[in-house]
Amino acid sequence: MAGNSFGTLFRFTTWGESHGPAIGVVVDGCPSLIDLVAETDIQPWMDKRRPGQSRYTTQRQEPDQVKILSGVFEDKTTGTPISLLIENTDQRSKDYSDIAGKFRPGHADYTYWQKYGIRDYRGGGRSSARETACRVAAGAVARKVLGSAIQVRGALVQIGPHKIDRSRWDWAEIDNNPFFCPDPVAATQWADYLDGIRKSGSSVGAVVELVASGVPVGLGDPLYDKLDSDLACAMMTINAVKGVEIGNGFAAAELTGEDNADEMRMGPDGQPQFLTNHAGGILGGISTGQDIVVRFAVKPTSSILTPRQTVDTAGNDTDILTKGRHDPCVGIRAVPVGEAMMACVLADHLLRRRAERRE
Amino acid sequence: MAGNSFGTLFRFTTWGESHGPAIGVVVDGCPSLIDLVAETDIQPWMDKRRPGQSRYTTQRQEPDQVKILSGVFEDKTTGTPISLLIENTDQRSKDYSDIAGKFRPGHADYTYWQKYGIRDYRGGGRSSARETACRVAAGAVARKVLGSAIQVRGALVQIGPHKIDRSRWDWAEIDNNPFFCPDPVAATQWADYLDGIRKSGSSVGAVVELVASGVPVGLGDPLYDKLDSDLACAMMTINAVKGVEIGNGFAAAELTGEDNADEMRMGPDGQPQFLTNHAGGILGGISTGQDIVVRFAVKPTSSILTPRQTVDTAGNDTDILTKGRHDPCVGIRAVPVGEAMMACVLADHLLRRRAERRE
Amino acid sequence: MAGNSFGTLFRFTTWGESHGPAIGVVVDGCPSLIDLVAETDIQPWMDKRRPGQSRYTTQRQEPDQVKILSGVFEDKTTGTPISLLIENTDQRSKDYSDIAGKFRPGHADYTYWQKYGIRDYRGGGRSSARETACRVAAGAVARKVLGSAIQVRGALVQIGPHKIDRSRWDWAEIDNNPFFCPDPVAATQWADYLDGIRKSGSSVGAVVELVASGVPVGLGDPLYDKLDSDLACAMMTINAVKGVEIGNGFAAAELTGEDNADEMRMGPDGQPQFLTNHAGGILGGISTGQDIVVRFAVKPTSSILTPRQTVDTAGNDTDILTKGRHDPCVGIRAVPVGEAMMACVLADHLLRRRAERRE
Amino acid sequence: MAGNSFGTLFRFTTWGESHGPAIGVVVDGCPSLIDLVAETDIQPWMDKRRPGQSRYTTQRQEPDQVKILSGVFEDKTTGTPISLLIENTDQRSKDYSDIAGKFRPGHADYTYWQKYGIRDYRGGGRSSARETACRVAAGAVARKVLGSAIQVRGALVQIGPHKIDRSRWDWAEIDNNPFFCPDPVAATQWADYLDGIRKSGSSVGAVVELVASGVPVGLGDPLYDKLDSDLACAMMTINAVKGVEIGNGFAAAELTGEDNADEMRMGPDGQPQFLTNHAGGILGGISTGQDIVVRFAVKPTSSILTPRQTVDTAGNDTDILTKGRHDPCVGIRAVPVGEAMMACVLADHLLRRRAERRE
Repeated sequence: MAGNSFGTLFRFTTWGESHGPAIGVVVDGCPSLIDLVAETDIQPWMDKRRPGQSRYTTQRQEPDQVKILSGVFEDKTTGTPISLLIENTDQRSKDYSDIAGKFRPGHADYTYWQKYGIRDYRGGGRSSARETACRVAAGAVARKVLGSAIQVRGALVQIGPHKIDRSRWDWAEIDNNPFFCPDPVAATQWADYLDGIRKSGSSVGAVVELVASGVPVGLGDPLYDKLDSDLACAMMTINAVKGVEIGNGFAAAELTGEDNADEMRMGPDGQPQFLTNHAGGILGGISTGQDIVVRFAVKPTSSILTPRQTVDTAGNDTDILTKGRHDPCVGIRAVPVGEAMMACVLADHLLRRRAERRE
Repeated sequence: MAGNSFGTLFRFTTWGESHGPAIGVVVDGCPSLIDLVAETDIQPWMDKRRPGQSRYTTQRQEPDQVKILSGVFEDKTTGTPISLLIENTDQRSKDYSDIAGKFRPGHADYTYWQKYGIRDYRGGGRSSARETACRVAAGAVARKVLGSAIQVRGALVQIGPHKIDRSRWDWAEIDNNPFFCPDPVAATQWADYLDGIRKSGSSVGAVVELVASGVPVGLGDPLYDKLDSDLACAMMTINAVKGVEIGNGFAAAELTGEDNADEMRMGPDGQPQFLTNHAGGILGGISTGQDIVVRFAVKPTSSILTPRQTVDTAGNDTDILTKGRHDPCVGIRAVPVGEAMMACVLADHLLRRRAERRE
Repeated sequence: MAGNSFGTLFRFTTWGESHGPAIGVVVDGCPSLIDLVAETDIQPWMDKRRPGQSRYTTQRQEPDQVKILSGVFEDKTTGTPISLLIENTDQRSKDYSDIAGKFRPGHADYTYWQKYGIRDYRGGGRSSARETACRVAAGAVARKVLGSAIQVRGALVQIGPHKIDRSRWDWAEIDNNPFFCPDPVAATQWADYLDGIRKSGSSVGAVVELVASGVPVGLGDPLYDKLDSDLACAMMTINAVKGVEIGNGFAAAELTGEDNADEMRMGPDGQPQFLTNHAGGILGGISTGQDIVVRFAVKPTSSILTPRQTVDTAGNDTDILTKGRHDPCVGIRAVPVGEAMMACVLADHLLRRRAERRE
Repeated sequence: MAGNSFGTLFRFTTWGESHGPAIGVVVDGCPSLIDLVAETDIQPWMDKRRPGQSRYTTQRQEPDQVKILSGVFEDKTTGTPISLLIENTDQRSKDYSDIAGKFRPGHADYTYWQKYGIRDYRGGGRSSARETACRVAAGAVARKVLGSAIQVRGALVQIGPHKIDRSRWDWAEIDNNPFFCPDPVAATQWADYLDGIRKSGSSVGAVVELVASGVPVGLGDPLYDKLDSDLACAMMTINAVKGVEIGNGFAAAELTGEDNADEMRMGPDGQPQFLTNHAGGILGGISTGQDIVVRFAVKPTSSILTPRQTVDTAGNDTDILTKGRHDPCVGIRAVPVGEAMMACVLADHLLRRRAERRE
């Protein structure tokens, strides 16, 4: 029943509903003596996920300003739990009054109702994507634990049926378009495509790719706390995610052992190096020292303007269309959320790895 | 560093290396008063995974006979931990002596070496697929917890580039071919295809699909212990798995909100029912009462006869080819393993669900 | 490193420093549909622990008003995490400036410094007894989970060398004196005794006894999650607690098997009943259905006016006397804190017990 | 329901019943590259706890020979789970047939019956003290993790009403008498006293004291994973333990703040040192670098020859006397068990401490 925490040594717990007074996260297990200032270390990541920044994301206006309530003394972490609070300011709860008793298809309305016998129907309550702001805040702390040598970056690589051209991949393009798209040509095409989706009140799915570089070899624990199983779990906890893959992923099913092998040679630095990275940087659940590559699929936003058939809590057939402010492609804002979750998984395993050091 | 346990209320811990005297699993948290007899309740599932049963799996001959050492009294579970032991009988450790110092591409050799500074190189040691026998044993206990109303079944739906024709899906065919293939036509074609792969000393990947039926609505916990995140984690802990998806999975990325919606109508029994199951039986991390559908991709077996470039522990470039007894498609035997892991996840959440009951 | 959470199915996480802007607790795993109103369900327990209510506790004035930030909708729990926030209002941080670099004997100053390399020295920071307000808030929610049939009560049974006379035990007296003392005669004597202690700037230890009645048989899990081991752990997490015992406790060491046996007879209701309760309501780690009896020892408050020898962070010998506002007997306020922890342990095991129910 | 595991990073899981074929323990999280040989590293500790070694412990004859089934390769740990197995050889299950349906006072018979609806009545089944052999085996591995600089020792300091004279404490005496008694005079007196107890078929309680020396400063995590709360939990998980205290323990309740303060001075080595150790080596849940001192009370063995009143599973009043082979003072064999649990707690926190190291 408890189930709002994530991680083992670097562990966070989130709380809050979409239309309550605030949401927040408690980050426990962050080492001491790390510089941590809300404005410069956390807020920039919040701003990246923040709604209302382009016409392709929900028009809800939330400053998402993070307050540090504990765990930091004179701008340094003290080793005690870091409580981060984000106030909700732009709730429009009345938008939801006419759907209070209806189960929105694709949403958690029906299952929460069945499980708990009660739900805060305003804006999805606890199951709202608003909760992901807390993940981004925790991820910002995780990045400080990882330090500057480990970099976690994400990109949108597919929107609806439209994929990027990987030969044009340029990380520098990520911030030049509202999609976190690394392919500038695709980004232009997507803008037109998504405008159409948005104007018709429809929605569309997407695929996000995350890359962590600078990860040392040896992160990840044996069989049931593998680095890849923890990453898969992490991504699948994000709202609307329906698939996760590492390295070659599902494509590996089509390959032969010869084609999928990552051969090795001694490098010029006298260290072993891999000649390819089909494995996505993880072998046997443990990081290889190469880039860690994760992709996840986000389903289309369930809130659409076209009426759908449903039932209500009284047991009547009815129709529903969702008028609230929503993302035509929730996959866009999933990029910083995925990055944050990846950073948290890596921070956790980095601390676990330290515990293994021999004297 | 610990990391050999899985689950919360229904929890198992595995131990053992491929070429040690035995492997085993301790199942903790199984309710009392469940009938449990090794021969009839566990052994049949072991036999399904057991190697050496067709020319498409490793020729290692292991009876995989399970002994119950504790937790059962007069053929009933007592609520205390159930210790299950499987002896290793057909180790041929000398097969491995010439690769003791070489890192096999695609295997965990390099990462275990880097992480632990030591490894039992015989047959993959701890990272061997042999460990999955323990999962199947635990899964057999989990099935008893689920009872007969909840059914967990798996099938191979793709081998290399060859997919089944879903219109021919027939669960009754599963046991009629050595691939757990539900499409009899595909099974025949696969036999020829895989014979070629096997004879050339190559290997190939596969995709497994799991379906759980009879699962009640309400299983799965909030944001970080979702039923789907726990399933994704579970599948990704299996050796060689590189991708997991639920319901429409990655295909959902290409759909619109209209196409992906599972609409609802009141059923003839006065209960709400879904008209489709794009979600794969899970919404907001909680089971809907529909079939739960999970797919996972298995990479091609890394042990192949074609020499691959690698390095050794002394820092020399070298080549390697793997002569041990291996599966040309490890995805086949992943079917019963995936089923077992799904059964364990469901048993865990079933017990967790019981804790939520209101008086 | 993480270590600010307690419990498994009913689980809470506390955060906050004595002199930060606020402290708080996130309660995760509380079942849904429980009536929960801050003013009537939580505040009364807070008030019981609140400082400044008599001359025998610290004169810091804190309203300790609890705000519910999440997890409750229309005065009912929703099954989502309950975030409770308590603002700090009466910090006098300057009281601490002259001891910032000195290690107060008996406090956590030295160990926090060594462990974390930094500490918020103001009022003890994280190690302040102020954190226990969060425990009381969590305990208030736990009481709602336990329901009215299970009652958790505590009393002060010894202060310094002065014990109560058990023949005069009267629960109704608890609220008639500032000590939670069940013996009115002792309470009068204690007042004089503690006045002397207080005026001399000294402090004294105490023993608290907790009794839970109405606990059903069967709570507590096998060997390592015993009800008594969880209770012992819970009490020992409270600041200044140095000993815990169940039932006869240390006195059992002096008894023979004949004297310590709790014999049984069938009761008039046709149920087995125990004739005595030397065991304190727990056998083999599992509740017997009798009253559960726990006692714990609280050391004297370390902050005293008499100078003590110590060292400072610069490595100099020095003396220290503590001028802040402190409790002459911190054991008094430990009564509601102990009750809260006991309620949390019982709520956790009550939920775990439900998971065991057979269909 | 699960509840047979202990620890976080250094974690063990025990299984097995008193009269089953074997008992065992899986130790997970042990670092790699530690020398570990069953005969020399584990067996000596087993022999210390082994029954039948003097007339003061049960006459059951068990060689308690430990087999290492996994996790060790060429006499070194590999970082994978260490499975240890101990066969049961001297069960006399028929001793128990006439008490199968009766609840032995002071035993877990009644509570197991109520909780699980079934129990293996032979020799106490899972709740037998036989399980503690597994703890000792795990503790032997923990000692290897701690290394030679950290020493964990235990002594019996009280048997029935008879305490040792602390001025005569000599660790070298521990192995010179069958009581692990550090006071040779007391040991002689105890022999007479316990002979009387034994001959009359009675039993008596005891107090064990554990001391860990060489523990570095900084072990123990914040509020809910304190070193002392983990130790209290650990001791209370041992069969028949009814009380735990750290340092001054319950005696601290009688002291003033002046008397209980551990003052500090800079030592000749330029390091801070404490002048006394009332705290028992732990402040704020964190080790101070001094000796860690824990005491726990063991109740008298419940199995005695004098008939006691009880009831049976059919609901009849009856009498019971226990004829099996039992310890007149189970506290004696609790000494090595307590040591083992202390070693496990310290090993766990030592690994956790390593995770905190800053780069």
